Amino acid sequence: MNQRAFVFSDWLSARAAHIQHVLDSEMPRADVVPTRLHEAMRYAVLGGGKRVRAALVYAAGLGCANCRFEQDLDLPLARALDCAAVAVELIHAYSLVHDDLPCMDDDVLRRGQPTVHVQFDEPTAMLAGDALQPLAFDFLAQMPIAPERIVQALQALAQAAGSLGMAGGQAIDLASVGVNLSQDALQHMHRLKTGALLSVSVMLGGLAVGTSALQQQALMRYADAMGLAFQVVDDVLDVTADTSTLGKTAGKDAAANKPTYVTLLGLAPAQALAKELHREAINAIAPLGESGRYLHGLADFIVLRDH
Amino acid sequence: MNQRAFVFSDWLSARAAHIQHVLDSEMPRADVVPTRLHEAMRYAVLGGGKRVRAALVYAAGLGCANCRFEQDLDLPLARALDCAAVAVELIHAYSLVHDDLPCMDDDVLRRGQPTVHVQFDEPTAMLAGDALQPLAFDFLAQMPIAPERIVQALQALAQAAGSLGMAGGQAIDLASVGVNLSQDALQHMHRLKTGALLSVSVMLGGLAVGTSALQQQALMRYADAMGLAFQVVDDVLDVTADTSTLGKTAGKDAAANKPTYVTLLGLAPAQALAKELHREAINAIAPLGESGRYLHGLADFIVLRDH
Repeated sequence: MNQRAFVFSDWLSARAAHIQHVLDSEMPRADVVPTRLHEAMRYAVLGGGKRVRAALVYAAGLGCANCRFEQDLDLPLARALDCAAVAVELIHAYSLVHDDLPCMDDDVLRRGQPTVHVQFDEPTAMLAGDALQPLAFDFLAQMPIAPERIVQALQALAQAAGSLGMAGGQAIDLASVGVNLSQDALQHMHRLKTGALLSVSVMLGGLAVGTSALQQQALMRYADAMGLAFQVVDDVLDVTADTSTLGKTAGKDAAANKPTYVTLLGLAPAQALAKELHREAINAIAPLGESGRYLHGLADFIVLRDH
Repeated sequence: MNQRAFVFSDWLSARAAHIQHVLDSEMPRADVVPTRLHEAMRYAVLGGGKRVRAALVYAAGLGCANCRFEQDLDLPLARALDCAAVAVELIHAYSLVHDDLPCMDDDVLRRGQPTVHVQFDEPTAMLAGDALQPLAFDFLAQMPIAPERIVQALQALAQAAGSLGMAGGQAIDLASVGVNLSQDALQHMHRLKTGALLSVSVMLGGLAVGTSALQQQALMRYADAMGLAFQVVDDVLDVTADTSTLGKTAGKDAAANKPTYVTLLGLAPAQALAKELHREAINAIAPLGESGRYLHGLADFIVLRDH
């Protein structure tokens, strides 16, 4: 493991611990009425995960604020990044709760724990997801930055979550089972389903601290490439990893007759595509110089991960 | 029918037609991918309804802009009111789609038409609701007014929709079947479940056009009273109206063993409470003078309606 990778993994763990602390202390407490709903919301959000979306917010923010460490950030900017990181994690958590419901993927386990509707019940899981979504917008509205930038951030997140973003991608995914998609169609689906929220995480990091036009363009190119790379790697891992490493059932997408990059392109070309997208992402952030090191580390982490 | 009532009902129909037109022309078209999701979203939203929440937005806006007619409003203010009215109608529509799902109320008809999950399917209904929610925030973010006021509006709507608002009220309602609630607990549930969105509709109308402190206080008192009155009247009608007038099954709440104002207080005291809340609402808007006539009309409409 080289020096960069070592430093980066420490940073990533520290950020994951930090966002966990912020979520834990700022979400409605489990003893606030309606208690069962708040318990379910906390269960859905605080159960862990890699916190990749939150990390993208911080990495983009540090990349554009020209700070080596988050401790060097002005307090309002650090707070703005926390709010944005909370927002994307809440949207992600809500989407998982609804995806796991019986009428959708009908999953009973997530990260080795019972899913929300199993631990609680279906109506509570549905309402927990429904309530996590506006909570995300509420946090974003609390960023202590210029209101113009807050409005831009809110609109970006709303569009990333909506029918032309994550929810839309989910709908296309549902309709695509057993269908032969073109690479363009598959790409469109993934750009919406997972790409939109990953991309907006990067853009919100920039909006939270403020960017130059050059920085914003760098973030957009990086976000585009990484949004897609994440899914290509997921599809590759679905085939190459074993279930215990993956933490979820390997080969599940292929078994469900869902089109994937591997079924469409073949394994080696899909792996080559992931490498190409990784290269694009790294090139995109060259203008950020040394400040881009966290984004660089995340690109490595996302593409080179084994689960 | 007196002169005020006659004029008001014309205004209300015109506003309902107007918001229908705005929704129809500004929601994603049904031929935009993902088409089935967009069809379902449009089906959920464009199927009619009294548009009381949109009307509250316009009535509050006209009440505070000191305009007799919406045609007299500056164009940006008229547009801001449209955006706010669209937002509250989208949130209302999403909540109905999710409430009707099999895991919730399991309703197959709404306004005489098949509910969304019957007309389409369950996953599509769930995703349509999920996508309507961020679309509401997206519209609110488009108001052509000072960004500070947009942020306030977004935060108010997020809180009204969340676990301490509508979704929270829904959770308390679910937990209350067969339970003896105190009047305080019942009131708390309804303040969240239906009151929060009705109240925020009034407040968004004020935020869209800008208010003095005095106007804002008047709106808050009015919103509080009407948010509750709406539900008390609903409970009374559940007992006194017949199914054909009501457009939904009369006596349903009582049959479901749900606590209502009528089961808690008795019919006559519930009717008296509705009248008292009506009086409070009318008193609250006295400072708005003649400009409050639409809010006055809506108070009459909500409390004196027979369905």
